Amino acid sequence: MAYSHFKNNKVEMKEVIQAKDYMAAPITPLHELEKNQNDMKAQMELLIMRIQAEFCRALEKEEDEAWDDDKTPHEYDFENDAFIISPDAKFKVDRWTRPTGGGGITCVLQDGRVFEKAGVNISVVSGTLPPAAVQQMRSRGKNLQNAELPFFAAGVSAVIHPRNPMVPTIHFNYRYFEVKDKDGVQWWFGGGTDLTPYYLNEEDAQLFHTTLKNACDKHDETYYVRFKKWCDDYFHIPHRGECRGIGGIFFDDLDSPDQKSAFDFVTSCAEAVIPSYIPIVQKHKDAAYGYYERQWQLLRRGRYVEFNLMYDRGTKFGLHTPQARYESILMSLPLNAKWEYMNEPKKDSPEEQLMTVLKQPRDWVK
Amino acid sequence: MAYSHFKNNKVEMKEVIQAKDYMAAPITPLHELEKNQNDMKAQMELLIMRIQAEFCRALEKEEDEAWDDDKTPHEYDFENDAFIISPDAKFKVDRWTRPTGGGGITCVLQDGRVFEKAGVNISVVSGTLPPAAVQQMRSRGKNLQNAELPFFAAGVSAVIHPRNPMVPTIHFNYRYFEVKDKDGVQWWFGGGTDLTPYYLNEEDAQLFHTTLKNACDKHDETYYVRFKKWCDDYFHIPHRGECRGIGGIFFDDLDSPDQKSAFDFVTSCAEAVIPSYIPIVQKHKDAAYGYYERQWQLLRRGRYVEFNLMYDRGTKFGLHTPQARYESILMSLPLNAKWEYMNEPKKDSPEEQLMTVLKQPRDWVK
Repeated sequence: MAYSHFKNNKVEMKEVIQAKDYMAAPITPLHELEKNQNDMKAQMELLIMRIQAEFCRALEKEEDEAWDDDKTPHEYDFENDAFIISPDAKFKVDRWTRPTGGGGITCVLQDGRVFEKAGVNISVVSGTLPPAAVQQMRSRGKNLQNAELPFFAAGVSAVIHPRNPMVPTIHFNYRYFEVKDKDGVQWWFGGGTDLTPYYLNEEDAQLFHTTLKNACDKHDETYYVRFKKWCDDYFHIPHRGECRGIGGIFFDDLDSPDQKSAFDFVTSCAEAVIPSYIPIVQKHKDAAYGYYERQWQLLRRGRYVEFNLMYDRGTKFGLHTPQARYESILMSLPLNAKWEYMNEPKKDSPEEQLMTVLKQPRDWVK
Repeated sequence: MAYSHFKNNKVEMKEVIQAKDYMAAPITPLHELEKNQNDMKAQMELLIMRIQAEFCRALEKEEDEAWDDDKTPHEYDFENDAFIISPDAKFKVDRWTRPTGGGGITCVLQDGRVFEKAGVNISVVSGTLPPAAVQQMRSRGKNLQNAELPFFAAGVSAVIHPRNPMVPTIHFNYRYFEVKDKDGVQWWFGGGTDLTPYYLNEEDAQLFHTTLKNACDKHDETYYVRFKKWCDDYFHIPHRGECRGIGGIFFDDLDSPDQKSAFDFVTSCAEAVIPSYIPIVQKHKDAAYGYYERQWQLLRRGRYVEFNLMYDRGTKFGLHTPQARYESILMSLPLNAKWEYMNEPKKDSPEEQLMTVLKQPRDWVK
């Protein structure tokens, strides 16, 4: 047992003892992960397994409570909500492996009462990078040989589209990369968390950004400002001149100050997801809304699709990889989206207020 | 008057006398078009104006009749269809100009009874091509200087998304290009028409392809086979290993056998759109369907979005152009689309039958 084996070594044991709660068996056999706990590859895989499970459980809890409320007075009275299909929305778990090495665990909850579509994915992949991919990394400033190189990548990625338009969509992704060339192994981390509201709530925005800033500040007081700006620049839809949402943090190529510190920083960021988001879900999941607000949410989801399919590097990189598991990559797309020709929010409306912030990102932390 | 001026010259007059029926005033002033009738730029602008107007009127006629049927028994009884908003769906016409030269006319009909979203766009644009765009054309085999070059482009483009899942979506685009370099003016035509059914009807597919083949055969008996294959290859979604629809014809860089013959071919293709499509609309627009068929249509519309945003050269080229009128480019996107994780058609269902043809294009003309 993982627990008994590691209980005398509390520092290293942190991740492994969670194994029984994971969404599925890890891609790398558990005994190998336990054996290689000093290797960052194993540490990262254990981290993303834990983050995936904790986040899925937190979302399922919201879903369960929404159903419980309903069960008490009249058992399963669905008359008032034509959208609801499943009376017990849980994550569907797909564990998949790639013939060329590695695999992933994709968890999707669809058509829930609180969440219209929620995807939480981990992947652990190794193999050789084709020269074109190596070239792309070189152009980002990595000092790599221009040849086919062995690599390892592990990451967790989630996009949550709630049903209620007053609850924002959240996205996060944290990943670790290793590439081996003739000079040895190069490693780096990347990731970020960002929020896409349909209606702006300034308190939510402040809570969200403050929680991320606190996670950053524990490690480096320059991180939040730099990574907040990086996020605003990255999640930008050039042809519309607007941002996808109200940002958060985003970083890539992080290989300093040292591997352990960088991993600790990524751990703090990933652990900040639940406290930055779940309180916002709880606050608004029962908010009143009507046809008009739903239509606006669907239009904004169209913009989300535009960004993800046209500009998101992860999506493009993923889908252009041979034998990509496209269903896991595209779980980020909303269940429903809408495109209306020349839709313009009314003057001084809440919809226009959101657009102002999307066109001109604001600072949310004093 | 255009008509009196040209009535003694019946060959050249063909386009100009239609002017009163255009959707809006041409981008190039009418008197200039009349004066320059021997110039292909003017001929193409007149052609696309006429094609746009004829096609919009043909679609409006279907819409009008759908409303007429309904008015007779109970005036404006909308109880049975919650989607219907406008009792008199007509094209909204936007004539726009670019500060740097040219402009376009965008016609969109949204939320009709027969058509959920129909966009028919023309654009007439001139200016200088940035070196990157010239480079892209060189790589396609054009023998052009690698510098900033003056260009002219005129085209008509339409995407029609009907409401009834038994009626396919159609797309067509016909365009003319001129680029001037030190050796003089190079010109070429491109275009195509293709069909995207939600449920396969073999008779429709045969009618559609036969109409296109007849238009091709009048000009060159090798065209249909070559351009049908080009269409299947182009409208392909690599990450899903499926075609967008059941094809049609597609060609580019057509500069043979001579300018007049190429223009006549393009004219035949553009004139084939109505007879290839409107009979299919009429046949199925009142077909019975239910919730399940609508959901399938929405899922397939998600695939349409994937192709257009990720792979369509016209969309990408358009949106990456500075000051692009993105609303005109993105009118091709459906009003509603859906993405479900791991949706799989049932075995031997009509949905699976469609997928078989999308994964393995068929010949539709004996």
